[in-house]
Amino acid sequence: MAQSNQKINAFFKIKVLSPEEKINWLRLARTELIGPKTFSEILQKYDNITQALEALPELVSKKHPKKSLKIPSVQDIHQELEQHHKLKADLIAFVEPEYPEILRHIADPPPIISVLGKRHLLQKPILAIVGARNASLNGKIFAEKIAKELGDYGYQIVSGLARGIDTSAHIGSLSSGTIAVLAGGIDHIYPYENKDLYYKVAEQGLIIAESPFGTIPQASFFPRRNRIISGLSLGVIVIEAAKQSGSLVTARFALEQGREVFAVPGSPMDPRSYGTNKLIREGATLIQNSDDVLSVVENIFKIQPPFQDRQKSKHSQETPLLNGKNDDRIEEILLNLLSSSPIGVDEIIRECHFSTSEIMLALLELELVGRIQRHPGGQISLKG
Amino acid sequence: MAQSNQKINAFFKIKVLSPEEKINWLRLARTELIGPKTFSEILQKYDNITQALEALPELVSKKHPKKSLKIPSVQDIHQELEQHHKLKADLIAFVEPEYPEILRHIADPPPIISVLGKRHLLQKPILAIVGARNASLNGKIFAEKIAKELGDYGYQIVSGLARGIDTSAHIGSLSSGTIAVLAGGIDHIYPYENKDLYYKVAEQGLIIAESPFGTIPQASFFPRRNRIISGLSLGVIVIEAAKQSGSLVTARFALEQGREVFAVPGSPMDPRSYGTNKLIREGATLIQNSDDVLSVVENIFKIQPPFQDRQKSKHSQETPLLNGKNDDRIEEILLNLLSSSPIGVDEIIRECHFSTSEIMLALLELELVGRIQRHPGGQISLKG
Repeated sequence: MAQSNQKINAFFKIKVLSPEEKINWLRLARTELIGPKTFSEILQKYDNITQALEALPELVSKKHPKKSLKIPSVQDIHQELEQHHKLKADLIAFVEPEYPEILRHIADPPPIISVLGKRHLLQKPILAIVGARNASLNGKIFAEKIAKELGDYGYQIVSGLARGIDTSAHIGSLSSGTIAVLAGGIDHIYPYENKDLYYKVAEQGLIIAESPFGTIPQASFFPRRNRIISGLSLGVIVIEAAKQSGSLVTARFALEQGREVFAVPGSPMDPRSYGTNKLIREGATLIQNSDDVLSVVENIFKIQPPFQDRQKSKHSQETPLLNGKNDDRIEEILLNLLSSSPIGVDEIIRECHFSTSEIMLALLELELVGRIQRHPGGQISLKG
Repeated sequence: MAQSNQKINAFFKIKVLSPEEKINWLRLARTELIGPKTFSEILQKYDNITQALEALPELVSKKHPKKSLKIPSVQDIHQELEQHHKLKADLIAFVEPEYPEILRHIADPPPIISVLGKRHLLQKPILAIVGARNASLNGKIFAEKIAKELGDYGYQIVSGLARGIDTSAHIGSLSSGTIAVLAGGIDHIYPYENKDLYYKVAEQGLIIAESPFGTIPQASFFPRRNRIISGLSLGVIVIEAAKQSGSLVTARFALEQGREVFAVPGSPMDPRSYGTNKLIREGATLIQNSDDVLSVVENIFKIQPPFQDRQKSKHSQETPLLNGKNDDRIEEILLNLLSSSPIGVDEIIRECHFSTSEIMLALLELELVGRIQRHPGGQISLKG
């Protein structure tokens, strides 16, 4: 046992890999059937990767005569390195100094990650913001706002480049530092509609991928990706998550990895609140603004405010929705009836005693001045 | 000490008051400067109300020569009784069997209450539903739905006849049993727009008032009224509550009285969620539907589902409301924690790892068997 620990320690010594070492490292990492867990075990069994690469094929064929390890050739790896080079991406192995320290501590850290952009962001404290792809406008506004505030306060924001909440989180933190973790290869933009955002993050922030270059993500890749999002983070903020949302998977990983879980509550009438309310019931911290996150994170992790005064984020008082200058009685009543959760126009018509045409006209006016938002199925809600 | 206890016990014996006793009881209750707390103290000092009425004026004038007690005349009281009679309302004193048992156990129970409608509703388990007057349509739909479901399940719903959530809660529970507690006199309909609802509740449900007949409510009356709403209830459900909402006052009373607090979450972008989200952060149970309420209430109070079978009711046995579940262990731990020096209930709650309701229930039982004593400011001690 002591001997094994010594080996681990020797192996885990942080160092920059030589080009040759990195090639071997990649060969092992790209070998079929060798996942992060197996890779860790191999690290513990062998003195170094070169030795492991030599010993493993024999070991496998001895124990499973019909199987053979498909280790990529040096040439294959050269090709992947060349692809990275062309994209201006790079690879960071688990033992290298640039590999994020916090990610080393999860149960199954990626042996090597592709990175594209400002790698130094990985050395700063990171918070994850995740949530529904079909987020409400309010949810997206909230995500962008809290990402910006936490970013201004010195935290890097990590998310998954997905539609909805992820997108807003990246946009909100573009200028302060945003990190996107992809499920496919570092070059594979998904969803493709986020092409522009991908390039912005690559330029102003950082893109990370565990999958080999060129990999098209399959459904099963997303949970694996999510463990990296939480693994990079001090805490995970979940904004809107329906039943069986991927964000709940990320939250579960966060708990397993000993990270904080924050959830934004929502109306039980909105299915997008199901997941976040469930998390709160199960013990996640209910948050309503960036201060709620900061007070927990700073308290628990005893992090020195990296950049700015604590006072500065106090500006984040939300402006009341219902204090409009609109004197019109119908509009006032409608605004009182509405909340951020979408509701059918027919229900509104039943509820207040105005004619349908009066109501429709008032709704149109409210829409034109940006007070309300329309949703599919004839539903409307207040706009944040 | 022993003598004083005897007096209390003698006085607290549940009995129907004779017409003459009730008149004297009302004279004392309607005396200026004698609030519920003072009334309780008087009950403990004198053998009966008639004796107190005779002794008090002298006592006051001796101690405060410039003051005099304004005790209403028998004629005044006859007039109030006549007014009640005309409205088909009645009065129930603290010691009378129809007075709700659960309300007797708050720190400052009303000495006498006016009732109009089906008084037998007071003998059933009650849950409060309160919330914003300017509620959203979603909030109102939710309130009506949960009131109906909890009502169908056998719980009476109590609220305050206010606009918004209160109104929806009463509407939802009209057919199953709804109780409205007024801030003014039993005859004073407030808000007046709820006139129709007032008459429906008076006919199908029950209206309660602590203030004398004819009283027009002032702002300060509403918190006093709210303590009755929570005091009648096993738990208080808060649906939408802005900053400084009266519903938060009711929730605070519920905590002080050892009742459960349930809160419906909402988007942080909606100011009407401020109060409920705050309650959840402070430990209230986040609820999304009636089952969330039932699972807590039935678990803690071990109430037999009054009407219907429930799948999960396998554990429930026929047990009376407040002294069925006798967890000797909690009581033992509490007795060990307590001494003859008064200590705050909140400290006890912090100290032992039981839920607030379990502790309050155990304390109630200990009080009923004369093992502990209550002091002002929510403090308790062992009884000497």
